[in-house]
Amino acid sequence: MTGAELTRDSILGGRVVLWQPARGYRAGVDPVFLAASVGAQAGQRVLDLGCGTGAAGLCLAARVPGVAVTGLERQADYAALARRNAAENVLEMEVVEGDLADMPAALRQQQFDHVIANPPYFRRDASVPARDGGREGAMGEETPLSAWVAAAARRCAPRGTVTFIHRAERLPDLIAAFDSCLGSPELFPLIPRSGREAQLCLLRGRKEGRAAFRLHCGLVVHNGAAHGGDRADYTPEASAILRDAGPLIFCG
Amino acid sequence: MTGAELTRDSILGGRVVLWQPARGYRAGVDPVFLAASVGAQAGQRVLDLGCGTGAAGLCLAARVPGVAVTGLERQADYAALARRNAAENVLEMEVVEGDLADMPAALRQQQFDHVIANPPYFRRDASVPARDGGREGAMGEETPLSAWVAAAARRCAPRGTVTFIHRAERLPDLIAAFDSCLGSPELFPLIPRSGREAQLCLLRGRKEGRAAFRLHCGLVVHNGAAHGGDRADYTPEASAILRDAGPLIFCG
Repeated sequence: MTGAELTRDSILGGRVVLWQPARGYRAGVDPVFLAASVGAQAGQRVLDLGCGTGAAGLCLAARVPGVAVTGLERQADYAALARRNAAENVLEMEVVEGDLADMPAALRQQQFDHVIANPPYFRRDASVPARDGGREGAMGEETPLSAWVAAAARRCAPRGTVTFIHRAERLPDLIAAFDSCLGSPELFPLIPRSGREAQLCLLRGRKEGRAAFRLHCGLVVHNGAAHGGDRADYTPEASAILRDAGPLIFCG
Repeated sequence: MTGAELTRDSILGGRVVLWQPARGYRAGVDPVFLAASVGAQAGQRVLDLGCGTGAAGLCLAARVPGVAVTGLERQADYAALARRNAAENVLEMEVVEGDLADMPAALRQQQFDHVIANPPYFRRDASVPARDGGREGAMGEETPLSAWVAAAARRCAPRGTVTFIHRAERLPDLIAAFDSCLGSPELFPLIPRSGREAQLCLLRGRKEGRAAFRLHCGLVVHNGAAHGGDRADYTPEASAILRDAGPLIFCG
């Protein structure tokens, strides 16, 4: 990627600047909510699976000083951008280039207190989703969601947490994948506007957890009934996370 | 059951009176919400699986005149009460005594536009749930949840709906069971108070449906942050359903 193809964007109220491709995957609010939901503490280690340009990992590192973030990214150009972004923000994030389906040896030896992932998802806002698992995989995901979850669980320390953000429509597969290798699942919906259905969800599990499934009330992101001219009409609760770098705490 | 062991309760704002055992399973708001969520129309047929004393089926019959409700109930004394309640309320509800795991021949020939179920669940508000499926079954459910869903799907006409109400903690199993025999799943959380986690959920699927999973915003049942002295501090939205016999419409 040459400089001409990049944009330099500011997220988390300006606490993180992000070089990212002008085309292709671009960070939205998703990695910011994901990072805000992790109850990491100073001294803990966090793995950002499929870190892209580093948005989630860097937001977490910016919010919680003393956390050591490692990012794994398959695409060399994104991995390079993640390293550049870590350096430019002077935040501690190691970036490993490799495929989670063929975990690099350096990471296979390690476990982390928290694992986070914002897997790629086919943006089908204006298209009909495929219910067929195979077609879904081909259209939207090169690596099956179950492989993402299994890799996350393997890298997670006992009692550690695994948190994914994904589109609500993938919840049946995501919940089933969590059920097979993690315990204590908790679902947190992100509701675009009051009274609307959730588009995005956070799902957290705990390694060796034994608590029952919990469905939290979730967070309303935008004020009002529809998009106004100003896209950034965030609710106070969303703004505290997106602009003021506050934590996203599951309710209940 | 003798008369001395029964109570006569009024639900749906007095539109349905219910003879039910003073001890044992007693209808709460669950069957009322379940019945309110079914978009049945006059002339359609509805099956209430495990109908107990008939609360859900009778609430639906009371709200939608011209709907023909059939209840299936395994326990003879509950089936008798359901018949008595149908007669006393002058509502059209046929009650068949039998086990959904060994569907009576009379029902095996039939399909319904809508199937509803409020399966028994172990009330474990003050206990630790069993994550183990077998122990769960022994403690809380004599018939596995997957058998309930499979029986409902078999009795449902093409393009018809199956709707269950259950505790949120059973969602992983319930969603997986729906995924195996129904399409177009929609989850609707019932949130006890604003900001709290859901205790109950409605899950709907459509026979032969192909739409993606949807997670609705749900309904807040009670006002305020905690129970006051008056238990019936329903929100206007809950009151419109529970007292005024309004429909529960999934949002989004």
